[in-house]
Amino acid sequence: MAYSWLKVPNDSDFTIVNVPFGVFSVPGKSPRAATILGDTVLDLSLLEEAGLFDDIMPIANIFCRPDLNTFIEQPKAVWSNVRQRVIRLLVEPCEDPRLKENSALKRASFHHIAEVKMHLPIHVGDYTDFYSSREHATNVGTMFRGKDDALQPNWLHLPVGYHGRASTVYVSPHNVHRPYGQLQKDANDPSQGSEYGPCQLMDFELEMAAVVGGAANTRPMTIEQAKSRIFGFLLMNDWSARDIQKWEYVPLGPFTSKNFATTVSPWIVTADALEAFAAPTSAGLQDNPTPLPYLQDPEYGSYDVVMTVAIQSARQSQPNVVCTSNFKNLYWNSAQQLAHHTVTGCSMKAGDLLGSGTISGSTETSFGSMLELSWKGSREVKVGEEKRKFLHDGDVVVLKGHCVMSRHTFGCRDRST
Amino acid sequence: MAYSWLKVPNDSDFTIVNVPFGVFSVPGKSPRAATILGDTVLDLSLLEEAGLFDDIMPIANIFCRPDLNTFIEQPKAVWSNVRQRVIRLLVEPCEDPRLKENSALKRASFHHIAEVKMHLPIHVGDYTDFYSSREHATNVGTMFRGKDDALQPNWLHLPVGYHGRASTVYVSPHNVHRPYGQLQKDANDPSQGSEYGPCQLMDFELEMAAVVGGAANTRPMTIEQAKSRIFGFLLMNDWSARDIQKWEYVPLGPFTSKNFATTVSPWIVTADALEAFAAPTSAGLQDNPTPLPYLQDPEYGSYDVVMTVAIQSARQSQPNVVCTSNFKNLYWNSAQQLAHHTVTGCSMKAGDLLGSGTISGSTETSFGSMLELSWKGSREVKVGEEKRKFLHDGDVVVLKGHCVMSRHTFGCRDRST
Ligand SMILES: [Ca+2]
Ligand SMILES: [Ca+2]
Ligand SMILES: [Mg+2]
Ligand SMILES: [Mg+2]
Ligand code: NI
Repeated sequence: MAYSWLKVPNDSDFTIVNVPFGVFSVPGKSPRAATILGDTVLDLSLLEEAGLFDDIMPIANIFCRPDLNTFIEQPKAVWSNVRQRVIRLLVEPCEDPRLKENSALKRASFHHIAEVKMHLPIHVGDYTDFYSSREHATNVGTMFRGKDDALQPNWLHLPVGYHGRASTVYVSPHNVHRPYGQLQKDANDPSQGSEYGPCQLMDFELEMAAVVGGAANTRPMTIEQAKSRIFGFLLMNDWSARDIQKWEYVPLGPFTSKNFATTVSPWIVTADALEAFAAPTSAGLQDNPTPLPYLQDPEYGSYDVVMTVAIQSARQSQPNVVCTSNFKNLYWNSAQQLAHHTVTGCSMKAGDLLGSGTISGSTETSFGSMLELSWKGSREVKVGEEKRKFLHDGDVVVLKGHCVMSRHTFGCRDRST
Repeated sequence: MAYSWLKVPNDSDFTIVNVPFGVFSVPGKSPRAATILGDTVLDLSLLEEAGLFDDIMPIANIFCRPDLNTFIEQPKAVWSNVRQRVIRLLVEPCEDPRLKENSALKRASFHHIAEVKMHLPIHVGDYTDFYSSREHATNVGTMFRGKDDALQPNWLHLPVGYHGRASTVYVSPHNVHRPYGQLQKDANDPSQGSEYGPCQLMDFELEMAAVVGGAANTRPMTIEQAKSRIFGFLLMNDWSARDIQKWEYVPLGPFTSKNFATTVSPWIVTADALEAFAAPTSAGLQDNPTPLPYLQDPEYGSYDVVMTVAIQSARQSQPNVVCTSNFKNLYWNSAQQLAHHTVTGCSMKAGDLLGSGTISGSTETSFGSMLELSWKGSREVKVGEEKRKFLHDGDVVVLKGHCVMSRHTFGCRDRST
């Protein structure tokens, strides 16, 4: 177990083995890169200015920019070196005393988390959402097509995904307004058409988003290359208007039902930090069928990250957990998603986001959306003393990731309004 | 009829009533904004530097940037003023002699088109592709579901669309490589799964892309607002791998079958320039059904732009026209697409692209894709002396737009390789 000379509260997820990356600002200063340890946000631009990364950084002034894109565009070795350097600077006994012994630098670069504003850490060039939890796809398929036809014929052969809307990826916390849109009048009588009105079936989706790093590819990536191109992960809530989705999505996929808001946690937990939590997926093996060679991952697995969703209504003082799932509940992992994404030659850029798809487990309390928890609105979900089928206005939806994932108060915590 | 004191070849689409915007570079100089008249590319950054736009431009140094985004982020009045100013500078009799009488400025800012390199004129934040030609949707629906079920129940109620991939929007000319990807082995026996191999059904899609301008919205746009937010149009080829598409697209839409390349023409023809060619759509009226109020356009219509596709094989010396369609062949116009895009609150930014969807007419020679021209591969399409069902390697695909659209040699001209 490693400790820091800096005080870290006992319950903090931001320990010295985490070192996530984010973008913060304080009044009067432009947004810039940071990491966090306990309650302390460290201004990486000042550490960089003081020369602490000089020997390991190929480019100058990388941390004073308003997003991390240029940093994560560097090769994986650079990300790893910076993380290791931060650990050496902060660990006790100290391995690199240039920060610990520089009071002026500490004063200038340390901020209490309560005093800073967090920003979207990346400029999202493109955002893709996958559909890679077998439990989730089976649930949705069973609801809409019946148990025998639950998975479409392609599902076990490729990570099904679709392009999402990059301009509406917001950092959490964010107020998500209940959208107005087109709703079918009567599913049994399509000739009645649709009406315009507020979404009645407002929902969240519990997801993890991989942040793509490295230089843009011009050719398909192998699984091996894809692995080295995943910078880290964000918790993600893919807000969804189920009634709008149902009417619009045939045949080209969800559109206005999904493009009003996608929220992500502010701190990117690196793939390096998650390494220690590598774990088999809920599928165990992929052998029925075996994927095509370009999708075969010799280290097939995901990460053991407990993921929860809690809801706090406007009348409640505490969030109530409605779902406990795990990042292991995936059939296609992030490296497979990335390799598939590029199979026809698609260029991936630093800052691109790959949503995992809703991460549902196999039990009724591990489903990652109200659609599944209420089984298409056929049953009530307990939210403390209250009940829900879908979200109400004023509900705060809190996503958390345990283990090294972002400290709980910095998961997603967004209000449905 | 207006003429310029600058020589314009008789057959040029870049007349003084066009004034399209693009981004060019010459050796040793960074990319910057330009317009074109006849064969002459005009460096707008030098005209700006000489003060010719000082009284009408809210921001300095707008034309020396590598994309037009900051310019088209300005209100529509700014775009119109700049276009009018360029016309006044170039028209004969001259209405503003500051360019005509400045030999040094003319020498520095005029380039023959053959001497410049054209770039993608915008940074595409997000790219959306619609499906708004009724003739095209009916063709595809008839092929795959039969005549009676051709249009899905939602199609006449909203402009169906999906999010595309922004990172692979390329300026024409571009070499488009035949992608490898997943192909279903036997559609009649899904249990056989898929195999990895080269796309066998390589296709183009003849589209027009609207370029969104103005400041990012935070609320839904009315039709009226949407109209003032369309900066101009590009010809677009939405390259498509039909066999990959068929296997992957259920239920979330096309993905790797479309994200390897989308090519656009280099010159953005402004909405102002197209105004003179406003025309009813092929639908005439939208009264069966009448759209919901937020989609009702009091000036419902499109533009009379003849659009052609020609193919030139590696053995041929001339392109052979295989399709003659028209931008009128739309059911949902660009303003309706944009209003619908924002109905749930999606934020649109300057530089976002809205593809029209394949623009097919009602006759067999006006279909905008090989899929339709060869009717799913059931008949041969004449390409000069040769025949095609889908594209062959080495085929050059030439898209043109007539009337004021970009000069024919600067439509899309891309090689399938
Ligand atoms: Ca999702
Ligand atoms: Ca298309
Ligand atoms: Mg979303
Ligand atoms: Mg495309
Ligand atoms: Ni961008």
